[in-house]
Amino acid sequence: MALQSFVEVHPDSHFPIQNLPYGVFRPGPSAEARPGVAIGDYVLDLSVVQSAGLFDGPIVGKSDCFLQPNLNKFLGMGRPAWKEARSTLQKLLSSTEPTLRDNASLREKALVPMNKVEMCLPMVIGDYSDFFSSMHHAKNCGNIFRGPETPIGANWFHLPIAYHGRASSIVISGTDLIRPKGQAPPTGSSPYFGPSRKLDFELEMAAIVGPGNELGKPVDVNEAADHIFGLVIMNDWSARDIQAWEYVPLGPFLGKSFGTTLSPWIVTLDALEPFACDAPKQDPPPLPYLAEKISKNYDISLEVGIKPAGHKNSCIVTRSNLKHLYWTLTQQLAHHTINGCNLRPGDLLGTGTISGPEPESFGCLLELTWNGQKPVSLDGTTRGFLEDGDEVTITGHCKGNGYKVGFGACSGKILPSSP
Amino acid sequence: MALQSFVEVHPDSHFPIQNLPYGVFRPGPSAEARPGVAIGDYVLDLSVVQSAGLFDGPIVGKSDCFLQPNLNKFLGMGRPAWKEARSTLQKLLSSTEPTLRDNASLREKALVPMNKVEMCLPMVIGDYSDFFSSMHHAKNCGNIFRGPETPIGANWFHLPIAYHGRASSIVISGTDLIRPKGQAPPTGSSPYFGPSRKLDFELEMAAIVGPGNELGKPVDVNEAADHIFGLVIMNDWSARDIQAWEYVPLGPFLGKSFGTTLSPWIVTLDALEPFACDAPKQDPPPLPYLAEKISKNYDISLEVGIKPAGHKNSCIVTRSNLKHLYWTLTQQLAHHTINGCNLRPGDLLGTGTISGPEPESFGCLLELTWNGQKPVSLDGTTRGFLEDGDEVTITGHCKGNGYKVGFGACSGKILPSSP
Ligand SMILES: [Ca+2]
Ligand SMILES: [Ca+2]
Ligand SMILES: [Mg+2]
Ligand SMILES: [Mg+2]
Ligand code: NI
Repeated sequence: MALQSFVEVHPDSHFPIQNLPYGVFRPGPSAEARPGVAIGDYVLDLSVVQSAGLFDGPIVGKSDCFLQPNLNKFLGMGRPAWKEARSTLQKLLSSTEPTLRDNASLREKALVPMNKVEMCLPMVIGDYSDFFSSMHHAKNCGNIFRGPETPIGANWFHLPIAYHGRASSIVISGTDLIRPKGQAPPTGSSPYFGPSRKLDFELEMAAIVGPGNELGKPVDVNEAADHIFGLVIMNDWSARDIQAWEYVPLGPFLGKSFGTTLSPWIVTLDALEPFACDAPKQDPPPLPYLAEKISKNYDISLEVGIKPAGHKNSCIVTRSNLKHLYWTLTQQLAHHTINGCNLRPGDLLGTGTISGPEPESFGCLLELTWNGQKPVSLDGTTRGFLEDGDEVTITGHCKGNGYKVGFGACSGKILPSSP
Repeated sequence: MALQSFVEVHPDSHFPIQNLPYGVFRPGPSAEARPGVAIGDYVLDLSVVQSAGLFDGPIVGKSDCFLQPNLNKFLGMGRPAWKEARSTLQKLLSSTEPTLRDNASLREKALVPMNKVEMCLPMVIGDYSDFFSSMHHAKNCGNIFRGPETPIGANWFHLPIAYHGRASSIVISGTDLIRPKGQAPPTGSSPYFGPSRKLDFELEMAAIVGPGNELGKPVDVNEAADHIFGLVIMNDWSARDIQAWEYVPLGPFLGKSFGTTLSPWIVTLDALEPFACDAPKQDPPPLPYLAEKISKNYDISLEVGIKPAGHKNSCIVTRSNLKHLYWTLTQQLAHHTINGCNLRPGDLLGTGTISGPEPESFGCLLELTWNGQKPVSLDGTTRGFLEDGDEVTITGHCKGNGYKVGFGACSGKILPSSP
């Protein structure tokens, strides 16, 4: 019999007791932000749990890590603290443990209905980097932009390519996005200027960094997992026309920096461990600093829906899976630090667009519509790129035995450019 | 007769009463960081000035902006606060004002000898972006990497190109730098891996953002100056071999993120105003969102010296000037936000390498030595790229009538890679 909570959890819920993802929420509009974990249709307020002295382990019991407006302090404490907190919370929420179950007034304070809370960014993000770790995505982009001769650059199979992203414009799921304006490639003598005409989503996940490393001290690839707290879903909104015009020679800038959306719940690596699977074999073999003793991905089903303005339902436009990544999360992190670059708790490492091998599993409209040439159908209409009013929702989950470990939703709606 | 301070200031000093640049310092190793301004060979402790109630204007007088460990709060207050603080401080330090001059115990507390303090990063940097605004630099790099046919890309004259940089590895002048390790282009079948063999400096300046803008709300180019507090000197250390191998298609990453050094004193735009000069004429004319009513640069002489290990003196390897920039600081900032990207107080906008037209004014070794082919001489030795033990120092100043408005030094020494 699987572990069960006294809190009722529907078998389709993303948040059974096996998950316990971390987020930051406000119980009411003017209340202070505080950490919580999701359980069924409720959020367990960790500031209440900590204030009540229910974290009784040797590390978290002595800390004020959940009396903070973000998770950064807890992130920095590392895996021993994370394991201890998880064990405390699984016990506290289990069907056989009376402490919270049988204390009505504490339960009332500690368990807040999820539909009543406002979710916030769970951490202060010092730096955000975005990788390019799906071979199918790299190949498709190369095909579209450079032709089929050499779709993938010579460096791609030797290193997990990445760029520095913009931390300030990272927003939480549910935040509307204004269509960016900018320059795009000229048709005549002068560049196009105006609202982007090739607005896209990118289906990604992102790792959240726990303990960082000192400047000048690389992290060993076999210890990299200890620096990753967990994962979120990420939509790296992209303006393909702005990006196409600006990106040579210094990479994407304004084509990306107008917004990036995160799902609110961080699913921990500990909760994902039952869904670990072998990463693809790498050929050529990676250089020693990227060669892992155990090279693993996670089997996380992902799907993207678009709901046009006025429509009732979201139409699924693609289904992919994190397991398609060529470069693993731990290789990404080790590569990021090999030059001595320091990571800090709360830093965000995006995987890059997660495309699978089949056309139905491509991770962005650029690939799905082959740069707008083959529009996708959406419940009676079609899309080359995103239109104003479109709401894009990415969801993801792992399938356990009788339960799901899920991420909830990462969604955002496009508002028209300001005049 | 020019304005004078009761604090003795040598005519060669970078810090006369006309300057009053802001920094953050510790008066002793275990003391708390606090804001200060430089005056001659002293630092005026602004926490002491504020605690003593000597900021008596309507904005700063009511604030605790200098009782903070960084300048972010003051930066966010904007130009009216900056003008008020400058006016208060120029009066307080002037030779004719008795308040501080004649109060020995207050003076003792408030004025700390500069050689006794430890300088810190003056602000928390949320995001750092680095531009590519010198035409001479763009042309030289294009020539070296792509050949003389089309040294400058088609987009360069239409937009100030930039990339997102790494905020975590920005350090204050005087911090040693460990030579980065990484991958470089293959000679045989496998990439080179090891300590960078093409370590370089980049002579840059950087603007520090004052008040930010809301996500989705671009800043008008004619109002952009109100979002810039001041400038620092920046050395954007670069590993040319790592950069060359990784940068296609997403731009520089590990070739840059191992460290970036800032000079400690932020010279305000108000102090630089007497040294404003016309920016170069732009042809083709910029798009309307980049067209400024007044397009100005600043006449700031810059020079870079290298001191090899064991040498007594630094040898000047280049002399350049901020006035060579093609894209102005205000165009950079307006462009950065045109897609709705939000800036926050304390953000850093690097200018890109500041090369002048003549070979003696190129802003990095890549250009000065033409990718290592023509080594520069250094006091009996030569350099293609930087060697372990080299100390690079960048300085800059404006020449006033009988005084200098200077930036102090931005320096760092290369330590060998760890084994
Ligand atoms: Ca991406
Ligand atoms: Ca640079
Ligand atoms: Mg984005
Ligand atoms: Mg750098
Ligand atoms: Ni950043």
